[in-house]
Amino acid sequence: MDANPVKGTRDMYPEDMRLRTWLFGHWRKVAEQYGFEEYDAPVLESEALYVRKSGEEVTQQLYNFEDKGERRVALRPEMTPSLARMIMARRNGVTLPVKWFSLPQCWRYERMTRGRRREHYQWNMDIWGVQGVEAEAELLAAVVSFFTNIGITSADVGMKVNSRAALGEIMTSLGVPEAKHAATCVLVDKLEKVPLDALRSDMAALGLTDETVTKLLAVMESKSIDALEAAVGADSAAVRELRRLFELAEAYGYADWLVFDASVVRGLAYYTGIVFEGFDRSGALRAICGGGRYDKLLESFGGEALPACGFGFGDAVIVELLKDRNLLPDTTRGTVEALVSAFSPELQGAATSIAAALRQQGRSVDLVIESRKPKWVFKHADRRGARFVCLVAPQEWAERKVNVKDMVTGDQLAVQRDDLATYIAERI
Amino acid sequence: MDANPVKGTRDMYPEDMRLRTWLFGHWRKVAEQYGFEEYDAPVLESEALYVRKSGEEVTQQLYNFEDKGERRVALRPEMTPSLARMIMARRNGVTLPVKWFSLPQCWRYERMTRGRRREHYQWNMDIWGVQGVEAEAELLAAVVSFFTNIGITSADVGMKVNSRAALGEIMTSLGVPEAKHAATCVLVDKLEKVPLDALRSDMAALGLTDETVTKLLAVMESKSIDALEAAVGADSAAVRELRRLFELAEAYGYADWLVFDASVVRGLAYYTGIVFEGFDRSGALRAICGGGRYDKLLESFGGEALPACGFGFGDAVIVELLKDRNLLPDTTRGTVEALVSAFSPELQGAATSIAAALRQQGRSVDLVIESRKPKWVFKHADRRGARFVCLVAPQEWAERKVNVKDMVTGDQLAVQRDDLATYIAERI
Repeated sequence: MDANPVKGTRDMYPEDMRLRTWLFGHWRKVAEQYGFEEYDAPVLESEALYVRKSGEEVTQQLYNFEDKGERRVALRPEMTPSLARMIMARRNGVTLPVKWFSLPQCWRYERMTRGRRREHYQWNMDIWGVQGVEAEAELLAAVVSFFTNIGITSADVGMKVNSRAALGEIMTSLGVPEAKHAATCVLVDKLEKVPLDALRSDMAALGLTDETVTKLLAVMESKSIDALEAAVGADSAAVRELRRLFELAEAYGYADWLVFDASVVRGLAYYTGIVFEGFDRSGALRAICGGGRYDKLLESFGGEALPACGFGFGDAVIVELLKDRNLLPDTTRGTVEALVSAFSPELQGAATSIAAALRQQGRSVDLVIESRKPKWVFKHADRRGARFVCLVAPQEWAERKVNVKDMVTGDQLAVQRDDLATYIAERI
Repeated sequence: MDANPVKGTRDMYPEDMRLRTWLFGHWRKVAEQYGFEEYDAPVLESEALYVRKSGEEVTQQLYNFEDKGERRVALRPEMTPSLARMIMARRNGVTLPVKWFSLPQCWRYERMTRGRRREHYQWNMDIWGVQGVEAEAELLAAVVSFFTNIGITSADVGMKVNSRAALGEIMTSLGVPEAKHAATCVLVDKLEKVPLDALRSDMAALGLTDETVTKLLAVMESKSIDALEAAVGADSAAVRELRRLFELAEAYGYADWLVFDASVVRGLAYYTGIVFEGFDRSGALRAICGGGRYDKLLESFGGEALPACGFGFGDAVIVELLKDRNLLPDTTRGTVEALVSAFSPELQGAATSIAAALRQQGRSVDLVIESRKPKWVFKHADRRGARFVCLVAPQEWAERKVNVKDMVTGDQLAVQRDDLATYIAERI
């Protein structure tokens, strides 16, 4: 039997889990501060949900297979299509705007082995039913709140913001049919990873002229919203939206986090408006999170159009960032409040009743259920992060007393059994 | 596009999710009270982990498939084999005893359609490295604490307890080779579901004589531990363990929950000692939870033997029970603390700054980011369960005041912007 987990997956030992719990706790806390409601969907979805034919990495690396009923299914690569499906299923049953969040596990299947994992967790927040950039502003505020809550500042991280709608306006003016906009965006998103020549030939294959490609790449180099406006024209709705978003960021108080960056396109085909991306200002790490507006996704599923935007925030890069900034919480030890142990096997019943009484008071208690020497008990208390060690020993127990040691102050006292819960509650 | 989730799976809309969060919260709370540490493993495992060839339902209904790398994999049907694999991988790196819990999603693939779901969540708690029934006693205590915490009493639910070791002693005395004990137990576990004739022929196929079958079935009808002892002999280690477990239950204070039931065998092949099962005393529902000792699982994986026991507690039957007893929490409404809305679009920035300030104080705030009439705002506040509605209206805002309505008391007041957080904190 191979003791390793399946290739590309990872086991979560308690110390790993404590970090995940810490991260998920912060994600949930922010989502709740913003009044978002948690939802979930099956990790297994119909493959058809991801067939988008725009050359996206996410659909090329689908972890798909055929089930025993000959259904083509996939472990979800991202959450947004599941959310769209859920909204579609209850189109008249949900109250707009929908403000939902989730913490899904997502999967991909890479044939190449780059040591990358095949599964990860994401924090997703989405707003459906709001046309204005007030929605994007709210999402960005939540991301910034999360960073702030865990000790990351705008000197560490920024949020690049751009508009696919601006690229759309340019493509339209150059005669690129709307049906090709998404695939074009997916292509130009690869600008930093793929040689320009290869990109140009892919673009030619898509039917784009050299002139169009050159113009698009030039616009993506705009250094400011003013420069973008000069390229797309003064009456651009996309530019107005960008300006409004930066205004709202002032009202929220996070304008120092935003950076206009015309080169940000994002790799998902379905974005239609504002797109954004959290980045490490030191330049060492990949994108930390990303999102944008996707007003036509429901339509592409055969549903009625409904404006929507959202973001995904993975659990990998943020942990690297926190490690780098020395901001990771200490998860090496447990968090039990008391360790209860019997001095000898005959006293196990007594120790058990002590543990039961403390637990009834809501205390977190590790009961030593096998015979162990005091030396082991104290070492174990340290490992578990236990504040109090309660030893049930024959002499004291004859007087209904328990020996209690406070591991922080070092105080030791024989405490009356009935006073124990109060004794601990007053000191913890 | 089909808006339904994959067959046998379910979407979790916010109202469903609130119930799951409530249930998971109670499970986690109890596990922490008992000093257990949370772990997790990938939902996808190697199929080999579940090949046990004992005719178990769990392995017959495996949700398995071949991945793109031609690996035989499965969506885990249960958590224990993953846990065993994790322990095996760090045999010298974990401190014994291990007391771990998890809340895994588990899968099965049934070809027949009985309207049963193919995925569900489970609460698992396990102890590794403890030979004595003190471990089982601790697990049962945790289960009982959970029931008690959610309002279920020993009049509603009981815990049936039996010992596979006793059946083992009988099989040994009848000359059944140890290699056939597990398969025999899996067979007799089906006693209530499968006609006796069919069972007898399966047993004959396993090489059991009629005499053996008759004796086993007779023992399974023992009405008390004394009766069991009469059948297996006075020096039975299994009987001593059973008696000790009932003694410990007295020390914990949950003896009224325990019922000795010689017919409980449980369907998993790997149990070797005490087995137990939570049941609805009204008889209306299937088993609520189940567990037992499995001292030889690690050995069967090629590892060094290590005593272990644990239980699984599904999320389906308990919800039925709570529904039946009218103990389900009200999850129809949200739990935001304040709803902030601008009276007109020009005041959106002001409303935004109010929401940001309240969130900074840790409040859960739903900001209305699209233009809505007060009537909608108040209806929405009710839907979201918001205690306070903060309306930013032109006249009051000119004096830096916000109109606050307390949805519980009905009080309405124009509150100075800088006093708002305090005003709410004092009333919530």
